[in-house]
Amino acid sequence: MGIATLGRSSPVVRSGHVQLSIILRESDKSTLQTQIFDQIRTMILNGQLRGDDPLPTTRELSAQLGVSRNTAVLAYERLIAEGYIRTKPYVGTFVSPDLPDTAFLSASESATAAPTAAHDATAAHQGGEDEPHLRTHRLADPNRRRLAADFWVGRPDARTFPLKAWSQHIKARLKSAGTKLTTYSDPAGLLELRQAIAKHLAPARGIVCDPDQIIIVGGCQDGFNLVGRLLVKPGSTAVVESPCYQGAAFVLESLGARLHPVPVDHDGLDVTQLPHVEGAVAYVTPSHQYPIGVTMSLQRRIELLSWATQYDAYIIEDDYDSDFRFVGSPLTALKGLDRNERVIYIGTFSKCMGPGLRLGYVVAPRRLVERFRRMKMLMNNGQSWLEQAAMADFMASGEFGRHLRRIRQLYRERRDALLGALQKHFGECEVYGEQAGMHLVWKLPKHFPSAEEVEKKGLAAGVGVISLATGSALRFDRNDGGDRLLMLGFVALSEKEIEEGVARLATALKG
Amino acid sequence: MGIATLGRSSPVVRSGHVQLSIILRESDKSTLQTQIFDQIRTMILNGQLRGDDPLPTTRELSAQLGVSRNTAVLAYERLIAEGYIRTKPYVGTFVSPDLPDTAFLSASESATAAPTAAHDATAAHQGGEDEPHLRTHRLADPNRRRLAADFWVGRPDARTFPLKAWSQHIKARLKSAGTKLTTYSDPAGLLELRQAIAKHLAPARGIVCDPDQIIIVGGCQDGFNLVGRLLVKPGSTAVVESPCYQGAAFVLESLGARLHPVPVDHDGLDVTQLPHVEGAVAYVTPSHQYPIGVTMSLQRRIELLSWATQYDAYIIEDDYDSDFRFVGSPLTALKGLDRNERVIYIGTFSKCMGPGLRLGYVVAPRRLVERFRRMKMLMNNGQSWLEQAAMADFMASGEFGRHLRRIRQLYRERRDALLGALQKHFGECEVYGEQAGMHLVWKLPKHFPSAEEVEKKGLAAGVGVISLATGSALRFDRNDGGDRLLMLGFVALSEKEIEEGVARLATALKG
Repeated sequence: MGIATLGRSSPVVRSGHVQLSIILRESDKSTLQTQIFDQIRTMILNGQLRGDDPLPTTRELSAQLGVSRNTAVLAYERLIAEGYIRTKPYVGTFVSPDLPDTAFLSASESATAAPTAAHDATAAHQGGEDEPHLRTHRLADPNRRRLAADFWVGRPDARTFPLKAWSQHIKARLKSAGTKLTTYSDPAGLLELRQAIAKHLAPARGIVCDPDQIIIVGGCQDGFNLVGRLLVKPGSTAVVESPCYQGAAFVLESLGARLHPVPVDHDGLDVTQLPHVEGAVAYVTPSHQYPIGVTMSLQRRIELLSWATQYDAYIIEDDYDSDFRFVGSPLTALKGLDRNERVIYIGTFSKCMGPGLRLGYVVAPRRLVERFRRMKMLMNNGQSWLEQAAMADFMASGEFGRHLRRIRQLYRERRDALLGALQKHFGECEVYGEQAGMHLVWKLPKHFPSAEEVEKKGLAAGVGVISLATGSALRFDRNDGGDRLLMLGFVALSEKEIEEGVARLATALKG
Repeated sequence: MGIATLGRSSPVVRSGHVQLSIILRESDKSTLQTQIFDQIRTMILNGQLRGDDPLPTTRELSAQLGVSRNTAVLAYERLIAEGYIRTKPYVGTFVSPDLPDTAFLSASESATAAPTAAHDATAAHQGGEDEPHLRTHRLADPNRRRLAADFWVGRPDARTFPLKAWSQHIKARLKSAGTKLTTYSDPAGLLELRQAIAKHLAPARGIVCDPDQIIIVGGCQDGFNLVGRLLVKPGSTAVVESPCYQGAAFVLESLGARLHPVPVDHDGLDVTQLPHVEGAVAYVTPSHQYPIGVTMSLQRRIELLSWATQYDAYIIEDDYDSDFRFVGSPLTALKGLDRNERVIYIGTFSKCMGPGLRLGYVVAPRRLVERFRRMKMLMNNGQSWLEQAAMADFMASGEFGRHLRRIRQLYRERRDALLGALQKHFGECEVYGEQAGMHLVWKLPKHFPSAEEVEKKGLAAGVGVISLATGSALRFDRNDGGDRLLMLGFVALSEKEIEEGVARLATALKG
């Protein structure tokens, strides 16, 4: 195999083409395509390649390395899918200009700022309508299927599920499944899948971790429960966003935690209001706050990490729909900035694939890995083998990356259709969370009825639009303005359905 | 469809043939075969048909009911598989003579006896070698594969997994899986599977329950955890068998329960030693005690139920390998005798199918069903869809019943081979638990070294035999005689492998 060498600090243009220091090894278990992908990604993450640096053409790369043109093309496609590089027609291929600098923060830089004067607004909220400590989140309502257009949140589009490829992987694994199906395996999950996830997380989320740190779980909820079982003691504090996702808050509460809500504004969690208590956990959704949709600012992220270090707290980062970012490139996860091992990262395949798989993962701090693994074993001995095996293959083959790119593009078009339809039927709209994720939030104009009322009128007209309560959001403050917020999931509807749904809603609200 | 009517109390022989009051309905969603199976099973369970009562021939039955001969044959095959009827060559088909009377106990009969003078031997055992409250059970050891013969416990034979049928059901379900894989479904599990399990439990285990009472879980361990989360409060008492299965004891302990061991003898749990405390849970394995293998006597079962009623306790019945009973017919589960809703039954597909599926089920008392469902939702939103769907189809098609019959016969032959080999190489052996399950226990002769020592010598000779500690058993009393007990799993080895393994062990112990 070929070796193309070059200086480490920046690529050099030489007689019209660029050379990269890529070394391919036949002994490596990875495919050539993956080796190329990994090494270019590493150069970008290390800062060896910077924004707008030119890359060789696929023809040049294949010639340099002695690999097929197709191999080079596939490696580039994965890099484009992950937002690391981009192609300008007729000009060439370049490193993306808008990679977040935050991916490269050093340990010293990330642990400087301290939280400013905080307001110790401890609140022990308990819902009244349900049994204490056994409140449950809202998941699905089968009757909703009758709606003409349903902007339900958090549901992927069944039509985009990669059924053909998925079925092929399932069938291939089934051929030799007898032994795998009849033995217990590592409760932390299938090693191949953990390896594929670790490999995915580095470029996609800026998280560098060993497969050993990854515990496969049955979706986010299993992850919340796992973390809660280990870190929540009865009476301890669980910081949650106000408003926040019910599923996480309720399971922490069921384990005896006192919920401590901290308000969310345009920059995410208001870190000045974090409690001054030792040993808390803080549950946050920094990439796309649930339900509001805002992204936590870098400054806030650094302050949150600093708080956790100061108060011996752990942060549960729920990165539920971070695969879909429509503006700029992928944001580095909070975990990617975490130099003091305070963050437990929870990812899921429920949004980018589907909740029927019941697959997600937890990235644990090194010092907690063994306890996480043991607790997972005590809880349920791990997840089913077949889905794990198929997912590992789907990721390792590069299909997962291509699937993400495909649906990200599709979901962006649908988001644009929704924004367009809102403007067409309602004029200028104040919207949150449209830069990422599977839903956006519309702050209703003052002359409109409340979100709850709009939801009712929509349902009567066959259109599902979602108030915070319906959308599994937990509110702590009646005066938080949440009554004016309407959630609109856009990924499971076609552009036509979106346009028709918004038109129907406009008619219903006028009537 | 035909109707064959007859008196309700007993079948009548009429001009050389028997008629049964079976009514087939085309409107019924069940197949004709299932309707026949269900109705005959019900007559047996109700006592309308009794031991040794003659049944019509399949030819007569098909003529009476206007169904194909094949339908009648398949219905009979299922009844034979479940041990309800048997065929005597050249004579005819009859109701099994050794159905347990316990299946027919009335509510009043079951709640009479009270526990006698009990010994309040409360013990708060805490292991020293592990982190407190996070001890974990022993599941598997990959290095064991190098053994020439491994009598490891609790592991099904990979060669008997119904891979072809299973793959067909998986593939069939995948064809229209897009919507199912991309939506959340009932956290209590797929309704079709819960229906199939309810239908299976009535004849197989004497448990009559609604599908609503069934919660699908990710194997027994997920079930223990679910029950523990709902019923264990910190400091509350968890009665466990001494010795018992680690996995259950440790998860209850991790939730704050004080373990209260109660000794096991030849009749199972010594109910005279149950604690006189309110609100305990009691974890038991009545069908085939883990690890010893004994079956709890009917008298003890009744006393245990009575204790639970008296002291407001709940019983967790772990019925892990009850599908394999080699002597007599299936024993009614404790849950089948439970007239006061004190028993939570936990079944698993890990033993009869394979642990890789991560599928099991909990049968909850009616008054706890909603809390179980909510807790399952808080814990992990339920199990993966594909395995549930395939299992539902595998059961509804009758293949599961045939699979059980097939492996039950095979496992019986292997048990016989093991008993034969032990006798051949070691003379008369004192053996426990050989009437059921996937392993038996050999009480080593006095002149033999300890079980731990025998295990070591076996391993050195390439033979895996299992001391209680290695076999995930938790002991509470050094003087319980457990040092002399050797566990031998026999279902995953061929008769030849069994014979060779025992021969090797004999040589190793002589050397």
